[in-house]
Amino acid sequence: MERFKTIDTTDIAAFEAVMPGRVLVGQAVSEDYSHDEMTEYGLFMPEAVLLAQSAAEVSAVLRYCSGRHIAVTPRGAGTGLCGGCVADKGGIVLSLQRMDKVLEVDTANMAAVVEPGVLLMEFPKALEGTGLFYPPDPGEKSATLGGNAMTNAGGMRAVRYGVTRDYILGMEIVLSDGEIITLGGKTVKNSSGYSLLDLMIGSEGTLGILTRLTVKLIPLPAANMTLLVPFDDLDLCVRAVPSVLACGCEPTAVEFMEREVISASEKYLGKQFPDRQADAYLLIRIDGPSAAALEPSLETLTGLLLSLGARDVLLADTDERKAGIWDARGAFLEAIKAGTTSMDECDVVVPREKIAEFMRCSRGISRETGLRILSFGHAGDGNLHLYALRDELPDSLWHNRRAAAMNALYAQARVLGGQVSGEHAIGHAKVEYLRSALGERQMALMCAVKAVFDPAGILNPGKVCGG
Amino acid sequence: MERFKTIDTTDIAAFEAVMPGRVLVGQAVSEDYSHDEMTEYGLFMPEAVLLAQSAAEVSAVLRYCSGRHIAVTPRGAGTGLCGGCVADKGGIVLSLQRMDKVLEVDTANMAAVVEPGVLLMEFPKALEGTGLFYPPDPGEKSATLGGNAMTNAGGMRAVRYGVTRDYILGMEIVLSDGEIITLGGKTVKNSSGYSLLDLMIGSEGTLGILTRLTVKLIPLPAANMTLLVPFDDLDLCVRAVPSVLACGCEPTAVEFMEREVISASEKYLGKQFPDRQADAYLLIRIDGPSAAALEPSLETLTGLLLSLGARDVLLADTDERKAGIWDARGAFLEAIKAGTTSMDECDVVVPREKIAEFMRCSRGISRETGLRILSFGHAGDGNLHLYALRDELPDSLWHNRRAAAMNALYAQARVLGGQVSGEHAIGHAKVEYLRSALGERQMALMCAVKAVFDPAGILNPGKVCGG
Repeated sequence: MERFKTIDTTDIAAFEAVMPGRVLVGQAVSEDYSHDEMTEYGLFMPEAVLLAQSAAEVSAVLRYCSGRHIAVTPRGAGTGLCGGCVADKGGIVLSLQRMDKVLEVDTANMAAVVEPGVLLMEFPKALEGTGLFYPPDPGEKSATLGGNAMTNAGGMRAVRYGVTRDYILGMEIVLSDGEIITLGGKTVKNSSGYSLLDLMIGSEGTLGILTRLTVKLIPLPAANMTLLVPFDDLDLCVRAVPSVLACGCEPTAVEFMEREVISASEKYLGKQFPDRQADAYLLIRIDGPSAAALEPSLETLTGLLLSLGARDVLLADTDERKAGIWDARGAFLEAIKAGTTSMDECDVVVPREKIAEFMRCSRGISRETGLRILSFGHAGDGNLHLYALRDELPDSLWHNRRAAAMNALYAQARVLGGQVSGEHAIGHAKVEYLRSALGERQMALMCAVKAVFDPAGILNPGKVCGG
Repeated sequence: MERFKTIDTTDIAAFEAVMPGRVLVGQAVSEDYSHDEMTEYGLFMPEAVLLAQSAAEVSAVLRYCSGRHIAVTPRGAGTGLCGGCVADKGGIVLSLQRMDKVLEVDTANMAAVVEPGVLLMEFPKALEGTGLFYPPDPGEKSATLGGNAMTNAGGMRAVRYGVTRDYILGMEIVLSDGEIITLGGKTVKNSSGYSLLDLMIGSEGTLGILTRLTVKLIPLPAANMTLLVPFDDLDLCVRAVPSVLACGCEPTAVEFMEREVISASEKYLGKQFPDRQADAYLLIRIDGPSAAALEPSLETLTGLLLSLGARDVLLADTDERKAGIWDARGAFLEAIKAGTTSMDECDVVVPREKIAEFMRCSRGISRETGLRILSFGHAGDGNLHLYALRDELPDSLWHNRRAAAMNALYAQARVLGGQVSGEHAIGHAKVEYLRSALGERQMALMCAVKAVFDPAGILNPGKVCGG
């Protein structure tokens, strides 16, 4: 017996009545909807794709589906990395991509109200000339703000400014029975009951569907500097990070990168990386009100990094040089993907001081499993992105080695006091790792919270809590 | 019929077996336990007070009470302002005050692990010499870190650094059936399932009892400056705030204060405030790595404030002058209390740009109701503390006027897009205002979430969700 009702022509007609011309079925459904950026986690064609344009439409669809036990998988740009937006239990994909308007930029309150489908790369255009910016900066710029909110995405500027959670002031949410509620608002503080807003952030559409978002903006720093810091090896490189964080210079970003990943990026972009002298680099960005105001931090950091074994401290002082470095960094994921046949990914976060130890372990796991594992990530947050690459391995070897490597990486993160996901979330692909990490009681609490919001269990079933 | 079981000698004996010599009953229970800082909300003597010293003891007590339907009210230092830690439904008060150890200061990971009873004024001593500090800075320094966490307290430095929520990385929680779970850890990012940690923060002990806290520390800024900015009137004063926030100087604190409150503080402290020229002031603090690094911000702020109608911009450049101002600010609540017979309090937060409008309305409400209403607060956050004073009013007049004033203040905050509480939380005193603000559906969701964590309903009953 199917757990959810299969879509039939009556359902299609009902959806068509709600959103005429925006209900895709059969050949009209692009293969893109069957996966996110990780095809390794399976391809699942939805029975229908609905292109919503308003909260009222989302409400009508949920009211219909909850009464008929039809599974609903909300989806933004589909750039996730853990199968969070695929209809792996059947039913419909409810796309929020067309809800892509910036509704208000409120400079006086330093807030903006947006629809969930606004792209991360489009949003800055709406803020031009206001002197304000939205700090969260996940690597994937074609992601939506709604997707970022529902996965609590992080990004490169989190070291100084925090993650998406820290910039969400309010949400409009359609509950599974179609009722629309508003959580939070334009206030920057709130101690008014349980934070259902924080519960919703990172819940991957399993508790309600996001149809409007109020985000906090902050004054745009007038100046920034990028430092590229070569080290003889990765261990020395990541061991420098705690001191960089503690020195009082408030770095905006502290990333690490290795030669093998840089080379992949050079090949992918067809552009040479600005420096070739080392195998490991720290990439540091500092922000401030003026270049002059950054000088003391620059001096402090340079002295500190050289004392910690850096070969050099290179200042990227032109826009072109900055772009050369950050573009390379931005292309890492795509470059790694382009250099292999398939891959699995691990997004663990460990206490910041444990990164060096974790990296040593991951090299050991690579050797033991015979898998190529590339990594890069947010050294300043302890958040690592590790990619186990299939290359030319046959099915059985790949599946065995991949499982061994992933199990070992997650186990090692747990030993070091880490968490399953720093910023990519759980989707359907990481549920069992989450269960191992949190234990049955916390999983049961999460399932019970899910049941409070979605008693019929139709919202993005199987994600986060499993089941 | 009583909703909860009344404590009898068998129960007392059972508690004594868990924590010998630390079970207070009858005359041994101080009257202090019957209220928090707001006696106006009623006096409720607990049937017994248990002084817990460990999570194991808390666990044993909860296991016992959940099986027998005994109400348990957790309590820190009792400095709350909405009746959150009083046993108004009977049963026991479970005091966490003796769990007051700083267990670990982990400088490498910039985190500390503490028991919930550590006092806000004691914690900095444990951090001395580390170069690190804990930014949350609620006015009441004799509050506990655990109480701050469970109310999501804010404080004066929230403008730049955020509120308590932003500094809680992990918690050890005893669930209502006695099971102990760990939420989060020492990682600074986390997208691993629903944020039960964020749900717990601000839940006022209604979902579980906090027995250990991991907090984030940040590098201590080496320099700070305090600006005292006199204005001709309060309206001009608060209207300057959005520009101060947007100018890129990243103020740490932006407080407003009026002559009447300053006078009360002078009288209470027996010390003269450093300036007498104006009726309204902004108090601004900026932090940075060095005094030199703060100079540009100082210049920007001075020019800006004068252009916005400030009479002057006074720099408090000695520790003595700084202390004179901040001590006065710190004494406001006690000073107001000392100057009247009883009072009610309102802790609304509005979008920052709406403060001036809200203040104008509150003056109107004061005139209309014939009640003296004093206010001060966090102008930089839109979070206002308003005190309706009883003075010499007889019972009936006071109750009518107080109800009229509070209803009007909360209604006005709602109209302006505000929230019931910015940082003092809900307790039992603000439940109906919360209901009016959020509506029945959100209250029902919160009650259902409460039932997930505390099916027997024994944890701090009547708080937050009511019932």
